[in-house]
Amino acid sequence: MGVIRFKDEMGEIRVGRLNGPDTAEECLEKSMGMFEATGRVHRVRTVLAPVEPRAIFCIGLNYRAHALETGAPIPEYPVVFMKNPASVIGPGQSIVLPQSCRDPLQVDFEVELAVVIGKAAKNVTEEKALSHVKGYMVANDVSARIWQKNGGGGQWVRGKSFDTFCPLGPELISAHDIADPNGLELSLRLNGELMQKSNTSDMIFPVKKLIAFLSEDTTLLPDTVILTGTPSGVGYARSPRVFLKPGDRLELSIEHIGILENSVI
Amino acid sequence: MGVIRFKDEMGEIRVGRLNGPDTAEECLEKSMGMFEATGRVHRVRTVLAPVEPRAIFCIGLNYRAHALETGAPIPEYPVVFMKNPASVIGPGQSIVLPQSCRDPLQVDFEVELAVVIGKAAKNVTEEKALSHVKGYMVANDVSARIWQKNGGGGQWVRGKSFDTFCPLGPELISAHDIADPNGLELSLRLNGELMQKSNTSDMIFPVKKLIAFLSEDTTLLPDTVILTGTPSGVGYARSPRVFLKPGDRLELSIEHIGILENSVI
Repeated sequence: MGVIRFKDEMGEIRVGRLNGPDTAEECLEKSMGMFEATGRVHRVRTVLAPVEPRAIFCIGLNYRAHALETGAPIPEYPVVFMKNPASVIGPGQSIVLPQSCRDPLQVDFEVELAVVIGKAAKNVTEEKALSHVKGYMVANDVSARIWQKNGGGGQWVRGKSFDTFCPLGPELISAHDIADPNGLELSLRLNGELMQKSNTSDMIFPVKKLIAFLSEDTTLLPDTVILTGTPSGVGYARSPRVFLKPGDRLELSIEHIGILENSVI
Repeated sequence: MGVIRFKDEMGEIRVGRLNGPDTAEECLEKSMGMFEATGRVHRVRTVLAPVEPRAIFCIGLNYRAHALETGAPIPEYPVVFMKNPASVIGPGQSIVLPQSCRDPLQVDFEVELAVVIGKAAKNVTEEKALSHVKGYMVANDVSARIWQKNGGGGQWVRGKSFDTFCPLGPELISAHDIADPNGLELSLRLNGELMQKSNTSDMIFPVKKLIAFLSEDTTLLPDTVILTGTPSGVGYARSPRVFLKPGDRLELSIEHIGILENSVI
């Protein structure tokens, strides 16, 4: 079952299930990732990202074809970076091209499967890893290549952390509904044109391995979100290169998880 | 004025001012960084880190002599990375050498001035930057060099994010008490021996510049903590190299801010 997070007509933030064009039935989380409808219906004023992340861990170069297209070696261990939690936006909200990324303007898209930790994880085995997952979302790891590649002294955090650079949604799909997070088609369309297409089975380090690795001697707090890496087809690696510009429409799709749509301003 | 955060005898978390060997007078924050004593005295069961960071931004190579000792070029822009917020510990708590950092064991120390954002900051000028600061603390940016330098694919986040790798404290010193955060002596002693000694005036990018830079098109949420970089003298750059081992005692001191003590297990 999928739930959205939204602001109602009074500005209250609620979790619920859409049951009309702009109404939702409120849901309560009975146990981790198990949502139960309450029967109370509210008007949906704004759809928010399904979670407010406690921290956002990201994995770089986790699809072989993407590592190759960027010229990077196939990583021996997961490559870990983070995004500022304030960079999150919800479905339908606009990605804003930052003033500080205009020289030159190289803001890029990356479709990724996002994993939401529901129960604190530390030193979990691969076998137990998925039992710490509350659910899944579609994510766009928006990236200012100019800061990631040139101005950041080799560190990716700044180029990945500008406000609006982490669209998440549209729903949180309960982990109970996804038997295997590593068998899902994923794709990204820019203005209707297919730019990225792969399957999460192509990950070099699958979800359970990522959770086991990240949790080694490290606590993943509840509502930590893990962006699991993007497949090939990003704008930076194309010839000619493709970057986001005002008016662009993005449609990111993951099988059984949903379609995340955002435009660019 | 400096305040500690602590657990009282009932397990309640409070902010206060030490007024005895194990008692504190509770304080309330009247306005940003302005704490007022309430007259209520509580027993201090555990001293915690002065804040629970919403996010931890860190700056690499922000002292010229440290950039030189690591062989890195002097950065053109601040080098930005992050630490997992769950890595925080308080004064007196132990730094735990992780199992996953034992081959070889290269866990290092870094004394740093920590800045606590009190009021959300976005696109703030250098002139206004310090008005967003609630206070200052001493920080240790504990670093597993093996993951920072070798296993991380060039990204520093993993090597910096293990549990206990971010000691903060001992107090939060109100920004009202620190006229200029870039004129403070800082030092680190390992088992009594002086390892790092510098002045925050040696920062390549001073605090107000860091806040202006980090907040470009990026929201620094309240309780975001910024670790402003370490001076020269870290263990990795010494000859012979010095790394932390069980039983070590660390004493990190910043003028007008305090002395942060932690041992290693």
